[in-house]
Amino acid sequence: MPNSHENKQPETSAPASWGPPYLLYLGNAADELSIKTARGLAYWRPQWCIGQLRGAECVPELKLPYLSCVDAKAAGANTMVLGVANAGGRLSPDIVRDVVTALEAGLNVASGLHQRLSAHPEIVAAAARTGRELFEARQFQHEIPVGKGSRRAGLRLLTVGTDCSIGKMYTSLAIEREMLKRGIAANFRATGQTGILIAGGGVPIDAVVADFISGGAEWVSPARDDGGWDVIEGQGSLFHPSYAGVSLGLLHGSQPDALVLCHEPGRPHMRGLPEFSLPELKTCLETNLQASRLTSPDVVAVGVALNTSKLDNEAAQRACAEIEDLMGLPCQDPVRMGLDRIVDQALACCGN
Amino acid sequence: MPNSHENKQPETSAPASWGPPYLLYLGNAADELSIKTARGLAYWRPQWCIGQLRGAECVPELKLPYLSCVDAKAAGANTMVLGVANAGGRLSPDIVRDVVTALEAGLNVASGLHQRLSAHPEIVAAAARTGRELFEARQFQHEIPVGKGSRRAGLRLLTVGTDCSIGKMYTSLAIEREMLKRGIAANFRATGQTGILIAGGGVPIDAVVADFISGGAEWVSPARDDGGWDVIEGQGSLFHPSYAGVSLGLLHGSQPDALVLCHEPGRPHMRGLPEFSLPELKTCLETNLQASRLTSPDVVAVGVALNTSKLDNEAAQRACAEIEDLMGLPCQDPVRMGLDRIVDQALACCGN
Repeated sequence: MPNSHENKQPETSAPASWGPPYLLYLGNAADELSIKTARGLAYWRPQWCIGQLRGAECVPELKLPYLSCVDAKAAGANTMVLGVANAGGRLSPDIVRDVVTALEAGLNVASGLHQRLSAHPEIVAAAARTGRELFEARQFQHEIPVGKGSRRAGLRLLTVGTDCSIGKMYTSLAIEREMLKRGIAANFRATGQTGILIAGGGVPIDAVVADFISGGAEWVSPARDDGGWDVIEGQGSLFHPSYAGVSLGLLHGSQPDALVLCHEPGRPHMRGLPEFSLPELKTCLETNLQASRLTSPDVVAVGVALNTSKLDNEAAQRACAEIEDLMGLPCQDPVRMGLDRIVDQALACCGN
Repeated sequence: MPNSHENKQPETSAPASWGPPYLLYLGNAADELSIKTARGLAYWRPQWCIGQLRGAECVPELKLPYLSCVDAKAAGANTMVLGVANAGGRLSPDIVRDVVTALEAGLNVASGLHQRLSAHPEIVAAAARTGRELFEARQFQHEIPVGKGSRRAGLRLLTVGTDCSIGKMYTSLAIEREMLKRGIAANFRATGQTGILIAGGGVPIDAVVADFISGGAEWVSPARDDGGWDVIEGQGSLFHPSYAGVSLGLLHGSQPDALVLCHEPGRPHMRGLPEFSLPELKTCLETNLQASRLTSPDVVAVGVALNTSKLDNEAAQRACAEIEDLMGLPCQDPVRMGLDRIVDQALACCGN
């Protein structure tokens, strides 16, 4: 739905075919983690989300009207978004049935799940029958060249992390929001499925063929000469043994002028790997800066974004103050505090 | 073709379905670079290669008998290997026609080209009609988990490089050969298409989905408890802006005990990227060691392998001596000199 940002984001506004208004499908999600995609959309693009569709056993909920597919269509919805993840990212028979119902009600369907909508003949048949579109956020259709590393115009900020799933998308979106608030041209560049649904496009960087990681990052943040910023969503961590290759290719392809380090205090170990502890913040940031210099020799760090969702307000303020002292950089929580001081630092360091 | 190594390499001996004896197909290759795959097979597995098939306009040649498909079959060939690469890795109409001829002569066909054999209906139909097998070295059929980084048993050596296409495969194979000569159990673990055809299996690491790079490396060099070595073929370079993500994932998944740095003196710039000069050897090695320590804290460097093919003998000896002084590590050319002193160093450092 048109909003004040859309004119500034021509390339990332959601396309008409599977764009908003959205009905967010939660299915029978058991917990908050399962509706991460729906919650991200509702938080960052509330103007696009007109209702939620919950199964009888769904536990979490959003602050949105309950709507059936037919009611959502009547209320103006264009697309139902599968905003739910279940074990293995598979489409259960329930979900397949509900997707067919949505198509028959006249809605397009967008999915961030691993398993393809198109893997289900009933869904493919229903889409053909109703003339509706299917969109798979984890599928990358474009043919792109390998990364070249040539210097390109424009200002780019990349979020990097001590770990996976630590707040890089929220941080990137909060920076875009703060820049837009100040009248600075800025585009969130999505690299994960939730980000792609929020941005209306992007590159599912962990799903491209390995040789094209840096090429994917170059593709999603092309040269720009309007003085504005590309704020690129980071993925993984150089210190995560499963995914560091993705993080490094993204770092090289992004060619960042500025890095923001994302962290969650108190996290006991690297996500999914109890044997691996998190890196020290200073080591992590220095390693990212060093690697970035291959394609962006003058890269600087401009802040630390802290996910303090598990702390009370006082502890959160204290954690930020401590890290600010340690790192000599502004440290804020994107949800609790906003990132105005990190944006100040980026603008001061990168010549706006 | 039984050979002295095969008993020691049960997992990497070429499978019967598309295994040796081989007829090497050169087509109408215009230069040496185009027959890199055929030359690698003929050099490292001469006992598997019984002939070459050259087109009328083929320029380079191997020291092997000229054979037609029918003659090769009569001489005992099992598989024709497309040992040629042309612009874009596509199968020209000539090649498609010759593949069909090979299948009709009773040969299986293996390919290291980008474009799939199976993309050509004539080839698929001929294989079905004749009951022959097609093997695509760049296609990875296995479902594998993401990398975990858990410590696994066994000794592993990984080759890393200042650049792409600098001698990592030749170095790995020369180390395997030297170890086997000494009666040490050793397996070359292939990560590229030529290596896969030589080893009879492996993981085309630059063709897996980005999230599975380190998982692919873990899969190709599983735990071993026979006191022997996995010698893992490196890919790309941490300093190549196009492919560094692949190199880092391979480094983490390989969990190497020992690194060998590969380099070609006099190379003017990073392959394909005139804007990028090669890294300093010391910086490159230290960066690789540092990154390796995430999954292999005690990793050591055991040598530098130099590609001196463009130098005369005296200049090659001098180049090795200079680098040996600079790096404090044995430095040898795998083709011109063999890598006995690098293997000595690996065995001395890693407790054999």
